[in-house]
Amino acid sequence: MQPSLSAVEAPGSLTRGQLEHASPAEVRQAIRDGRWRSNTKRLALGYHQANVTIVPERYAFDFMHFCFANPRPLPLLDVTEPGDPVPRKCAPGADLRTDVAEYLLLRDGEVVEQLRSLDKMWRKDHVAFLTGCNLSLDRVMLEAGMPLPHLSNEEAFPAQYRSSIECTPAGVFRGPVVVSLRPVPDPLVVPLIELTSRYALSHGAPVHVGDPAAIGIRDLSKVDWGLENLIRPGHTTMFWACGITAPAAAAASRIPEMIVHAPGRMFVTDRVVKESTL
Amino acid sequence: MQPSLSAVEAPGSLTRGQLEHASPAEVRQAIRDGRWRSNTKRLALGYHQANVTIVPERYAFDFMHFCFANPRPLPLLDVTEPGDPVPRKCAPGADLRTDVAEYLLLRDGEVVEQLRSLDKMWRKDHVAFLTGCNLSLDRVMLEAGMPLPHLSNEEAFPAQYRSSIECTPAGVFRGPVVVSLRPVPDPLVVPLIELTSRYALSHGAPVHVGDPAAIGIRDLSKVDWGLENLIRPGHTTMFWACGITAPAAAAASRIPEMIVHAPGRMFVTDRVVKESTL
Repeated sequence: MQPSLSAVEAPGSLTRGQLEHASPAEVRQAIRDGRWRSNTKRLALGYHQANVTIVPERYAFDFMHFCFANPRPLPLLDVTEPGDPVPRKCAPGADLRTDVAEYLLLRDGEVVEQLRSLDKMWRKDHVAFLTGCNLSLDRVMLEAGMPLPHLSNEEAFPAQYRSSIECTPAGVFRGPVVVSLRPVPDPLVVPLIELTSRYALSHGAPVHVGDPAAIGIRDLSKVDWGLENLIRPGHTTMFWACGITAPAAAAASRIPEMIVHAPGRMFVTDRVVKESTL
Repeated sequence: MQPSLSAVEAPGSLTRGQLEHASPAEVRQAIRDGRWRSNTKRLALGYHQANVTIVPERYAFDFMHFCFANPRPLPLLDVTEPGDPVPRKCAPGADLRTDVAEYLLLRDGEVVEQLRSLDKMWRKDHVAFLTGCNLSLDRVMLEAGMPLPHLSNEEAFPAQYRSSIECTPAGVFRGPVVVSLRPVPDPLVVPLIELTSRYALSHGAPVHVGDPAAIGIRDLSKVDWGLENLIRPGHTTMFWACGITAPAAAAASRIPEMIVHAPGRMFVTDRVVKESTL
């Protein structure tokens, strides 16, 4: 995957600390204005952040079915009418053409363009899907005292890998479940499983704990997305399903056109995180 | 709505008591063989019963979106691939062309034919949706000691009405939320709300408690579906969302073709009822 566009902010740019307790609308405005171009971890704490997947209408039923059949990686938060850039259930005042810091245009599953906005390429047949993200749980993690690297270290971010677990196919979509790795201090393994299992809309419980090779990951240093996480003694490798499963399916299924958010640069919704089962 | 086909069973017909503790597969087999043609209340206790809605593929995305936007009346349990009559998530050994006691064919939302089987009219572009049903909670109700009429009286069945509550439109679908009425002894009002609110896939908590006129129902004797329920002193009128919202939307939206189960004659799935939120 190509390197991201420059994360240098426009004049009046903000700090992560300033946006931690900002409202979702304020975060979206900062992104729209170019005052925030980095990843969205710890922003608007307590609100659902979402993966964005935009497909032409002719793929909309198949992709919605794919989400329904694979709720662990792709828990559905919202879907738009064809041509409507407003996610009316999750953020009725937002605009999906402008409110994400960086978009990727995929052709046959390959990134062909990085974009700051979709204004010039949005079409009447585009349908946008929002699916849950583990960054939605940053507040819950902080309140539970989970010292996870991505929460305490500005540079850290979960590593993500294509696993050998296959999604349930639906229509034209198939592909691997992409997983995100968090190295977890051993005393936190049980509480973190208990905690995340109560938030199905943010991927729920881990899909795997322990040997990465058991889910087809031979070398942890070869990340597919994100940053490598150092596994220190006394830590357990825990893997959660990840929304990057959508662009991975575009690649596996050679979908002619899909637009997604750049990894880590999520869409911030108005929906408060609450416990959920699916 | 037209009267149902004769409920007289074929040779070897069964009693409700025999099917109460039968497996879902046994109930479906009895229906397929014509040995059970009545409603499915108290059958295969503890398993999800489902509303069946079949539409041509060109309406599949819109209807799936309609379910997603209206999870109270239409909580989605399963959806099939176009042309595939097997609900692979909820009942992989079943056949939706034969395993419902009676089907209704709707043209522009009007019932034009009642059918024992879809064998002769199933097409490659048919997509079937299964949505949750309040009969799925019969076991939970019995175990909680809820003396509801439809559980104790063979002849009783919840009355159903078009309410003045509008569904969130999606694509070509719009229409009223259909509600089912249960007259509840006053001491059970709170426990029944607490109980049902924990089962979102079976319509969850009531959408209204009290004066029927507040949701547009002027005369309880004029039922749209089901049987009139007598409201005795010391009872409260409680209304839950109902899956008949789907054919009501076909009528309101004048959908050219939709096939549904006949009211009360649900599809019995293999999925065990568990607590859920949406």
